[in-house]
Amino acid sequence: MGDKQSAILLISCPDQKGLVSSVTEFIFRHGGNIIDLEQHVDSDERHFFMRIELDLAEFSLARGEIGDRFKADVATRMGMQWTLYFSDVIPRMAVYVSRYSHCLFDILSRYQAGDWQVEIPLLISNHPDLGAAAESLGIDYHVLPITPQNRPEQEQRQLALLQDYNIDFIVLARYMQVLSEDFIRHYPSQIINIHHSFLPAFPGAKPYHSAHKRGVKLIGATSHYATADLDAGPIIEQDVTHVRHTDSVTDLVRKGQDLEKIVLSRAIWRHLQRQVLVFRNRTIVFG
Amino acid sequence: MGDKQSAILLISCPDQKGLVSSVTEFIFRHGGNIIDLEQHVDSDERHFFMRIELDLAEFSLARGEIGDRFKADVATRMGMQWTLYFSDVIPRMAVYVSRYSHCLFDILSRYQAGDWQVEIPLLISNHPDLGAAAESLGIDYHVLPITPQNRPEQEQRQLALLQDYNIDFIVLARYMQVLSEDFIRHYPSQIINIHHSFLPAFPGAKPYHSAHKRGVKLIGATSHYATADLDAGPIIEQDVTHVRHTDSVTDLVRKGQDLEKIVLSRAIWRHLQRQVLVFRNRTIVFG
Amino acid sequence: MGDKQSAILLISCPDQKGLVSSVTEFIFRHGGNIIDLEQHVDSDERHFFMRIELDLAEFSLARGEIGDRFKADVATRMGMQWTLYFSDVIPRMAVYVSRYSHCLFDILSRYQAGDWQVEIPLLISNHPDLGAAAESLGIDYHVLPITPQNRPEQEQRQLALLQDYNIDFIVLARYMQVLSEDFIRHYPSQIINIHHSFLPAFPGAKPYHSAHKRGVKLIGATSHYATADLDAGPIIEQDVTHVRHTDSVTDLVRKGQDLEKIVLSRAIWRHLQRQVLVFRNRTIVFG
Amino acid sequence: MGDKQSAILLISCPDQKGLVSSVTEFIFRHGGNIIDLEQHVDSDERHFFMRIELDLAEFSLARGEIGDRFKADVATRMGMQWTLYFSDVIPRMAVYVSRYSHCLFDILSRYQAGDWQVEIPLLISNHPDLGAAAESLGIDYHVLPITPQNRPEQEQRQLALLQDYNIDFIVLARYMQVLSEDFIRHYPSQIINIHHSFLPAFPGAKPYHSAHKRGVKLIGATSHYATADLDAGPIIEQDVTHVRHTDSVTDLVRKGQDLEKIVLSRAIWRHLQRQVLVFRNRTIVFG
Repeated sequence: MGDKQSAILLISCPDQKGLVSSVTEFIFRHGGNIIDLEQHVDSDERHFFMRIELDLAEFSLARGEIGDRFKADVATRMGMQWTLYFSDVIPRMAVYVSRYSHCLFDILSRYQAGDWQVEIPLLISNHPDLGAAAESLGIDYHVLPITPQNRPEQEQRQLALLQDYNIDFIVLARYMQVLSEDFIRHYPSQIINIHHSFLPAFPGAKPYHSAHKRGVKLIGATSHYATADLDAGPIIEQDVTHVRHTDSVTDLVRKGQDLEKIVLSRAIWRHLQRQVLVFRNRTIVFG
Repeated sequence: MGDKQSAILLISCPDQKGLVSSVTEFIFRHGGNIIDLEQHVDSDERHFFMRIELDLAEFSLARGEIGDRFKADVATRMGMQWTLYFSDVIPRMAVYVSRYSHCLFDILSRYQAGDWQVEIPLLISNHPDLGAAAESLGIDYHVLPITPQNRPEQEQRQLALLQDYNIDFIVLARYMQVLSEDFIRHYPSQIINIHHSFLPAFPGAKPYHSAHKRGVKLIGATSHYATADLDAGPIIEQDVTHVRHTDSVTDLVRKGQDLEKIVLSRAIWRHLQRQVLVFRNRTIVFG
Repeated sequence: MGDKQSAILLISCPDQKGLVSSVTEFIFRHGGNIIDLEQHVDSDERHFFMRIELDLAEFSLARGEIGDRFKADVATRMGMQWTLYFSDVIPRMAVYVSRYSHCLFDILSRYQAGDWQVEIPLLISNHPDLGAAAESLGIDYHVLPITPQNRPEQEQRQLALLQDYNIDFIVLARYMQVLSEDFIRHYPSQIINIHHSFLPAFPGAKPYHSAHKRGVKLIGATSHYATADLDAGPIIEQDVTHVRHTDSVTDLVRKGQDLEKIVLSRAIWRHLQRQVLVFRNRTIVFG
Repeated sequence: MGDKQSAILLISCPDQKGLVSSVTEFIFRHGGNIIDLEQHVDSDERHFFMRIELDLAEFSLARGEIGDRFKADVATRMGMQWTLYFSDVIPRMAVYVSRYSHCLFDILSRYQAGDWQVEIPLLISNHPDLGAAAESLGIDYHVLPITPQNRPEQEQRQLALLQDYNIDFIVLARYMQVLSEDFIRHYPSQIINIHHSFLPAFPGAKPYHSAHKRGVKLIGATSHYATADLDAGPIIEQDVTHVRHTDSVTDLVRKGQDLEKIVLSRAIWRHLQRQVLVFRNRTIVFG
C-alpha cells in the first residue's frame, strides 16, 4: 500500500446541490481526515471548484484504489473533473532563462534551502551565461540558441529534453524568447511566466520604458500561465510597488526586478501546493 | 414560513472527523444550496471553524425549525457552538464618537449610500460637536460627558440607551474614552474599536507622536474587538502606509486618518457579513 | 505690506549650472528663510524643476514686489517659467458629480473638518441626487443634465458658472460625462479626474467589469489631470488593492470605491500644496 | 588630479538662513554641476540636512583640494558636519551570517549580477554551513563559533579581521548572535541589521511566534543600524505583508523571509548610495 500520508484532491464541475456533501461523505466513510477544504462557486458561470487536503493515515482504501473508487462513487455521477495528487510524489520542474539572473537565483536560493517540494533537474537557455550557477547545484544546463530560422527545430529539441527529464511543469524565469503556440499546447497550464508589468498594462517588450514614458506612479509584475496569446494567459499572482518622478528607467528596472522574482516564486509555490485551478482564462487560487 | 431567502451558519468546535460531511449532508438532505463554504482547522489548538452561506429558497424546513433540527441532528452530537443568521434580520449598530469626524463621516457616507445592511439608530458622544451630522440623517445623538467621577453612572446610562435602541453591536469611531471592564463584558466580541497604530506597537495614547519619535517608516491602523485589556483585543483588520523623515506628526495624523477610517469600515463590513469568529483572543476572518 | 507669512515658488526651465544657487542666493539676500526645497532634473529631457517653500516673516521686499524682482534678477536671465503662491490666498475649487456619492462625501468630510486650505463654493452635476449634501454645507448645487444634443450649450453654462464663482480648479468626483476638448482647454492642468483602474490598464467605461473578466489579482484607481485624450492625462496618484477569485464585480466596486476616494483626495491635497508640476504629459510630484 | 567623475556631499548642521545658498554658490563658483540635491529641515530640532550629488567633470579644484576648500570657505563658518564621497571609491562590506541563507543568497545574487557598487571580501559566521556559497564567489569565509564564554575573544578576532580586510561597513544577514556594545561602538551607523518584525513590535527572539500568538493581520521586517540597545537602532527601511488566520508560524516564516531579504537589500542599497543620515536615533533617508 506504500506510504500515502496525505493527498490533495482538486475538483471542478458545473454547480449543483450536494457536491460538498458527496465528496466529504466519501472521505468520511473511508476514514479520511480533512486537513483543509476550500470551495468556490463562480456564480456567473454556475461552476464549482474545490480543493481538499486529506490526511490518509487512517484511510481504509489502498492508495491505488482511491481514485477509482472516487470516480465510481462520486465523480462520474456528478460530472466532475478531478485530479488526485499524493504529497510524496515530487513534481519535476524545468527552468528557462536568458541572461537576467535575478529570478533564477531566487529560485535556486529556495531550492538549495529546501523550501520547496520540487526537483529541478533541467535548465534550458538561449545563452551560456548562467550555466555555472546551474552546474554548481548539479542541475543540467542546456544551451539552445534561438534564431528566427531555427526556432521550430530548437523547440523540438526542448520538447525531447523535457520528456527525457520527465518534466511536469516549466518556469520561464525572464526567458526572452516567445514560445510557439504548438510548444505551449504541450504544457497547458503548466508553463509559468513572469511579465514585468501589471498586466494588462504594458504587455510585450520594454514595459519599464513604457511605464516611464507614461509617467505611472506604480510598477508591477505579473505571473501567469503561458497561452497562445502573448502575456494574456490566466494570472496567478500580481504585485506592484510605488515609483516617483525621480525614478529613471534604470531605477524602475532595479525596483521591478525585486517584484519579478518574488511574484514568480510565489506563483511557483502556489502551483506546487496545487492551489491553482484554471477556468476560462482566469485562475482560482486557493490558500 | 416567511421570507427566508438566505442564512449564514457559523460553527466552531473541537476538531474531529466528519464535521464538514455532517453539516453539508444536513443541508443537502433538506434541500438547501450552499452559496459559500469556508472552514478552518487551527491545527495547534485542534479546533474547527466553519462559515456557510445558504440559499434557503427550496429549503424543506420552516425558518423557525432550522435551528432546532440542526441542533438535534448535528450540533449536539458534534459538540458544536453555532449561530444562525437570517439575511433579512438587519443588525442594529450604535456608534460612539468624540470630536474626530473622519471615521464617523466615513461610516455615515456608506450608511447613506446604502452600502451596508445595517440600522444605525443611535450615536453616543462625550461631546456635542458631531450632533448635526447625526441628526441630518435622522440618527439620535446622545451627549454623555465623561469625567473620572461620573464614568460609572454614565456607562449605566449608555447601557440603558443601548438596550432601549435594541443595539446589537457598537463601533468606537475614535471614541476617546476608555470603557470599563464591566461595560465591555455586556458586549463580548460586539464592540469594534479602531486604534491608530499597527498594534501591538504603540498601544495607548498618542501613537503618532510615539511613531514619529521612534522614526518608523510605516504607520498603521488596527481594528479589533474591545476587551478588558486596552488595545489588546482580537484583531480584525490592520493596514499600514509608508512614511518618510519628511513627515511631521501632523502629516502622520493626516495620512493615518485615511487608514483609520478605511480599516474601521472594512472591519464593520466583515462583522456585518458574519465573517469573523473569535477564539482565544484571535480572530478567524473568512472571506 | 500685508500679512505675507509664507509662499511657494514653483520653477521649471532647461537645465543649466547655477540654477539652485541663483534662486537661493536671491532668497537669502532678501532675508527669506527656506522652509522646504525640492528640485528635480529630468536627465533625459535636460529639464529642471524646483519647489521652494519660503518663510516671508523677515523678507525685505513687499509682497507685491517679490515677483517683479525675482523676474528681473533671476527668472528672465535663466529662462524660467515660474509661479509664486502666497499661502493666505485660498484656492477655489468646483466639484463635478453624477450619482456616486463616495468621492464627494469624502471630499466634503475633509472640507467640513477643515483639513484643507480651500474654498468649495460650487457643485455641478448632471443629476439632482446629491444636492442635499451640498446644500447642508452651504455649497451651491447646479443641475445641468447632459444629452448628446445639449452638451455644447451645457458646457457653456458650466464655463459661465465657473467664472462667476471665480473657480481656480475643478475636481471630477466620478462625474460620468466626458468633457469636450474645448472645455478642457480652459483649465489646463486644473481639472483633476479619478479613474477607477490602474491606468493605462482598463481605460474608458466599466473597468471593474473588464478587470473581473481578465482575472487580475489587483484593482486600482488613478488620479490624473484631464486632457483631450480620455484617461490619458498626466498621472498624479495611483494605488491598488489585492483581489481574489472570490471577488465578484460587486466586490471589486466596493473595494475599488475605497481606493478611488482616497486616491482622489490625496491628489487634491497635493494640488493644493502646489506639489505638482506637469511636463510633457507626466507629473513631477514633490513632497 | 585623477578621475574624479562624481561625488556625494552629505551635510548636517543647526538650521540657519543661507545654508543652501552657501553650498550651491560654492559649487557653482568652482564649475560643478548639481546632479541631485535634497535637503531637509527637522523643524522640531531646528536641524538641517543635505545630500548633493555633483558632476565633477568641469570642476576647477583638484580632487584633493575640494574638501579643504569647502571646509575653509563654507563648512566651518556654518558649523557643518560633512562628508565627501567620491563615486570611484568602492566601499568594502562584510556580511555576518548564521544558518539562514535567504538574506545572504539575495545579497550574493545582486553582487554577482554587478547590481551594487561594493566589494564583499569577507563573510563571518558562527556556523560552517554557508561557506560553499561564499567560496564559489571567491569570498573568504571565516567560522567563529560563539559561546557565552568565548564571545569577547571572538569579537576581538572579528575586529582584527574587519581591519585586515579594510571593511567599511557590516551587514548582519540574519546573524543570530548579539554583538556587544563595545563591538558596535567600533562601527557607529555602519552595522546594518535586519529584524524580522515591524519594529517596535516584537523585538528580540521569535517574532513570528509572537505575531502568530497575537493574531496580527500583518507581518513585517525592519532594517536598522545596530546600536547598543537591541532592535532599537535608527530604522532605515520597513515593509509588511498581509497574513491571515490560515497562516501557521511556518507560513509566517516563509512569507516573512521574502520581506527580510528585500528590506535588507534595499537598506544596503540606500547605504551604498549615501542616502542615509542618522540624527538622534532616527534616519533621514533621501532618494
